[in-house]
Amino acid sequence: MQLTGRWHFELVTADVLAVYRVHDVIHTGRTHYQSVDVLDTPAFGRCLVLDDKTQSTEVDEHIYHESLVHPAMLLHSGPKSVFIGGGGEGATLREVLRHPSVERVVMVDLDGDAVRICRENLPNHHQGSFDDPRLALRHEDAREYLRACDEKFDVLVLDLVDPIEEGPAYLLYTREFYEIAQAALNPGGLLVTQSGPTALINYQECFTPIVKTLAQVFPAVAPYTVFVPAFTTLWGFTLAFTEGAVPNVPPADMLPEDVDKLIEERLGSELLAYDGTAHRRIFSLPKHLRKGIAQEPRIVTDDTPVFMV
Amino acid sequence: MQLTGRWHFELVTADVLAVYRVHDVIHTGRTHYQSVDVLDTPAFGRCLVLDDKTQSTEVDEHIYHESLVHPAMLLHSGPKSVFIGGGGEGATLREVLRHPSVERVVMVDLDGDAVRICRENLPNHHQGSFDDPRLALRHEDAREYLRACDEKFDVLVLDLVDPIEEGPAYLLYTREFYEIAQAALNPGGLLVTQSGPTALINYQECFTPIVKTLAQVFPAVAPYTVFVPAFTTLWGFTLAFTEGAVPNVPPADMLPEDVDKLIEERLGSELLAYDGTAHRRIFSLPKHLRKGIAQEPRIVTDDTPVFMV
Amino acid sequence: MQLTGRWHFELVTADVLAVYRVHDVIHTGRTHYQSVDVLDTPAFGRCLVLDDKTQSTEVDEHIYHESLVHPAMLLHSGPKSVFIGGGGEGATLREVLRHPSVERVVMVDLDGDAVRICRENLPNHHQGSFDDPRLALRHEDAREYLRACDEKFDVLVLDLVDPIEEGPAYLLYTREFYEIAQAALNPGGLLVTQSGPTALINYQECFTPIVKTLAQVFPAVAPYTVFVPAFTTLWGFTLAFTEGAVPNVPPADMLPEDVDKLIEERLGSELLAYDGTAHRRIFSLPKHLRKGIAQEPRIVTDDTPVFMV
Amino acid sequence: MQLTGRWHFELVTADVLAVYRVHDVIHTGRTHYQSVDVLDTPAFGRCLVLDDKTQSTEVDEHIYHESLVHPAMLLHSGPKSVFIGGGGEGATLREVLRHPSVERVVMVDLDGDAVRICRENLPNHHQGSFDDPRLALRHEDAREYLRACDEKFDVLVLDLVDPIEEGPAYLLYTREFYEIAQAALNPGGLLVTQSGPTALINYQECFTPIVKTLAQVFPAVAPYTVFVPAFTTLWGFTLAFTEGAVPNVPPADMLPEDVDKLIEERLGSELLAYDGTAHRRIFSLPKHLRKGIAQEPRIVTDDTPVFMV
Repeated sequence: MQLTGRWHFELVTADVLAVYRVHDVIHTGRTHYQSVDVLDTPAFGRCLVLDDKTQSTEVDEHIYHESLVHPAMLLHSGPKSVFIGGGGEGATLREVLRHPSVERVVMVDLDGDAVRICRENLPNHHQGSFDDPRLALRHEDAREYLRACDEKFDVLVLDLVDPIEEGPAYLLYTREFYEIAQAALNPGGLLVTQSGPTALINYQECFTPIVKTLAQVFPAVAPYTVFVPAFTTLWGFTLAFTEGAVPNVPPADMLPEDVDKLIEERLGSELLAYDGTAHRRIFSLPKHLRKGIAQEPRIVTDDTPVFMV
Repeated sequence: MQLTGRWHFELVTADVLAVYRVHDVIHTGRTHYQSVDVLDTPAFGRCLVLDDKTQSTEVDEHIYHESLVHPAMLLHSGPKSVFIGGGGEGATLREVLRHPSVERVVMVDLDGDAVRICRENLPNHHQGSFDDPRLALRHEDAREYLRACDEKFDVLVLDLVDPIEEGPAYLLYTREFYEIAQAALNPGGLLVTQSGPTALINYQECFTPIVKTLAQVFPAVAPYTVFVPAFTTLWGFTLAFTEGAVPNVPPADMLPEDVDKLIEERLGSELLAYDGTAHRRIFSLPKHLRKGIAQEPRIVTDDTPVFMV
Repeated sequence: MQLTGRWHFELVTADVLAVYRVHDVIHTGRTHYQSVDVLDTPAFGRCLVLDDKTQSTEVDEHIYHESLVHPAMLLHSGPKSVFIGGGGEGATLREVLRHPSVERVVMVDLDGDAVRICRENLPNHHQGSFDDPRLALRHEDAREYLRACDEKFDVLVLDLVDPIEEGPAYLLYTREFYEIAQAALNPGGLLVTQSGPTALINYQECFTPIVKTLAQVFPAVAPYTVFVPAFTTLWGFTLAFTEGAVPNVPPADMLPEDVDKLIEERLGSELLAYDGTAHRRIFSLPKHLRKGIAQEPRIVTDDTPVFMV
Repeated sequence: MQLTGRWHFELVTADVLAVYRVHDVIHTGRTHYQSVDVLDTPAFGRCLVLDDKTQSTEVDEHIYHESLVHPAMLLHSGPKSVFIGGGGEGATLREVLRHPSVERVVMVDLDGDAVRICRENLPNHHQGSFDDPRLALRHEDAREYLRACDEKFDVLVLDLVDPIEEGPAYLLYTREFYEIAQAALNPGGLLVTQSGPTALINYQECFTPIVKTLAQVFPAVAPYTVFVPAFTTLWGFTLAFTEGAVPNVPPADMLPEDVDKLIEERLGSELLAYDGTAHRRIFSLPKHLRKGIAQEPRIVTDDTPVFMV
């Protein structure tokens, strides 16, 4: 094994690093909001790295993006309008647009320069989804956009950067924001948000507080978690349901064949990582998460935000 | 975050590293067979590191060892005699001995010096299990031991170091060895072996060949996988059933409450990580593993072994 | 080459690291003042690391300590009393005591616990020098000690940790301190201080300001620099002369044979690294340092200290 | 200090790494002979990295190249024809061409693709020197070229990659090659070669054998060493003189003002790093090198080459 060469270093916790080899730097620079790097790597292909944190990679982004998008879309009875917060790579958009029921997508990503860099340098991520006529793309603050708009949506997909101190997104993980989000949902609508790392060594950073905060605002929530290789840790998501969307059966108890049938009906084709068995896996939480959520006292508010390392 | 200080570097693949901070070196040295380090770390407590590969850590070894031991023990109708191959930390032994039905455990770990180092320096791992009168501890080659012995066992637990070229264990992952192991099982017996990493970037190193090889020797197998934080990757295990042990219901389809009831009946208490929901998670394989196993052509033999990086 | 294993990381600048392999951790802990680690390493033997910065190593400490001590001692006409500030390893003391003319050494190192740790774990550094009856060892602030004491010294050797923000030593690199030091010198006395890194990429961190500040307080100074492998960078020192000590010939112009003769006369034996030719090398400054000193406008004062990374 | 981000790792020895931050990858690829990377780095500007070893950087290449070229050129009585072996960056060429006496330079660098990459991406290195009409540039084996050519040169400058096993250059550091080189020198001619690292921890890798081998072939040699920040270690060079070129005064004993006068006469301007005082420094060897050379028994031959890590 060659030690020499170039390596990307990233914090998993203050005492654990994720490190991968870098072949090339496709883009490096700073936008108004953050540093944006597109790396080419032997293990993961092209990687989007914002403020030194890997957002997604060619090799495994389908695990993240399919897990983020499809549970919410399938648990809605027939989503026509979708709001995406963040999601600059265009891969969340790509998965949303896979659903033929969708007539309109509003994607609000604060950082227009970052989106342009992704569009140019991550073609295998977006796969042309930015050109879909159903898309309305805006570059402004997602919270302010949702607060001010009259439009309502069937599904909100929050594909945001982690809540980092002085970062652009930490106010998109608070009770106040979730109240705004709830008000922007149609009856029967639901929301999903990426919710940070969930391994035994880092699930308390932001995952359990986010779940607890959503559970205070919405009548029901369903947290889930999947392993994303490039993050070298388990990654969390949380579904939050409006009254009319609360499922009869907890997502973890849905039969794999029923989920597979739903995918077939809605999409007409298989996905790469997400299917009925994967659905059962990701919603069947490790014990430390079930216990951790139950015992979590923190509610995230604008005045008491949570921050990741 | 402090960059400075001491870090342990480890390969996940040739292009991905697992790196964690080291507080102290409790033991460092070489036995006849391998290098043995016991590290004290802020993220994971005490870690056992053999030939620069982390075997288990105080903080998360229960995830690994409970996942390794209890599915096999619970899927047996009432295990009395257990064989452990490897398992030098004594934590596999600890979990086996938790089952009151067990009357005799033969543990064969090649490296007596390594076991002594663990016994001395990893008290939270073994928790005194080496002193249990049901244990017969031997330091010799597990394959040769099984081949030569007349005794038969209800459950074989193979907690071996990874198959590394020139390492001490690669001949414990071959068809020839599994045939020896099968012959050492009582009717209704079953075997479980750690089976290497299973993430999208490394599942083909040894996991899928091991599963396929076991499936050639045994009438049924059940692979499963769990995230172990200190490995920074998903980790695989495989159950292999003799005729009389093949379960009626695939392990992934067992109801969580039934598994919980079985744990309560057999052990009389809860475990830290493994319960009914965790069971459902770990046996519900990610799609790339189901597909990877189906497409794997390699059978591991003495002449065509597999090696990890 | 093996990448895997344990590595010590250290900043050379914010963008350059010094990294060496760690075999064992002999001691790790925090005293009242700083973190103290004694590492055993294959490249450098035992290393003293304070606040994550390598202070000295078995393999190359003689380069540092001989270069620190002997120029000052030899340029004095016959040093009887020596003050050492810092120098916890006892190696500076060892070199000072090598001079038979020395009758009394006062060593003031703030951190008594660190000194005890060195005494116990770095025998090849101090080589028993702490037991010399000529030594008076004190654990208090060197500046306050010098300010308050009536005693005067022939040579002051300042073997201090680098001036780090919130570190224990940055007020021992200021004009006010150098005035106190000057007042503690006998007529014909001189001072030497370690002065930080001097490579092209880091000489402005503290070296040139220290030289300029000493030049403002003392009638003459002589900066010099030597490569210390474990620091992976050139390291600087500065001699400062009282009126009666100003040499007739600049140290860089002394003939190697004259320095060798002086060493023979004074010590009766050779040193490991320092001799006439080494003397000529270390006082013949690289051009960027001569230019950098000439152009340096900063004077270090209590109110305008310099800090290293 | 930010730990996160991209770092270039390089071996100083098997147990010591040089690590610097990478901003951008300007070029990465493999030629027929070696991997070639041009990195942009915050500490060192653009860096040329061949087979993962840093060859030179914008920030400090003048230290290396001025030290390599000018001692040889100035110690010759009036060099008209110069041969450069290697030197792909064009910076050695740049320094040679600075001498108005030079009428013809033959530069033979095996790797034409690497030279083209340098020419395109390292403008501050070559500064247009490739366009000088005095240059004849060839891409073939330097040893074979010298062996076969009838032309003789006043000065040979060997700016080669290190002797690495299976690398393209190890046969350019042997007695047989030095005999070929000697035969290619005019009366009064001399040779200089880069000679590898010279710090206490790595001077025996190749420096002392190279010096000893040259001393067996040539009537006199003069080794010298300078600190190059990007290498994080002292770097060695060796002058080898034909009979008519042996200087009256050892280079280390030349008066700085005499060297400065020679530079002024020959070049009409100052250099960035090399002047009379720098000359005195680099030729005044550290004691371990003088001792190491004296005690070195190895002669490098085609059959008994030396290799660096």
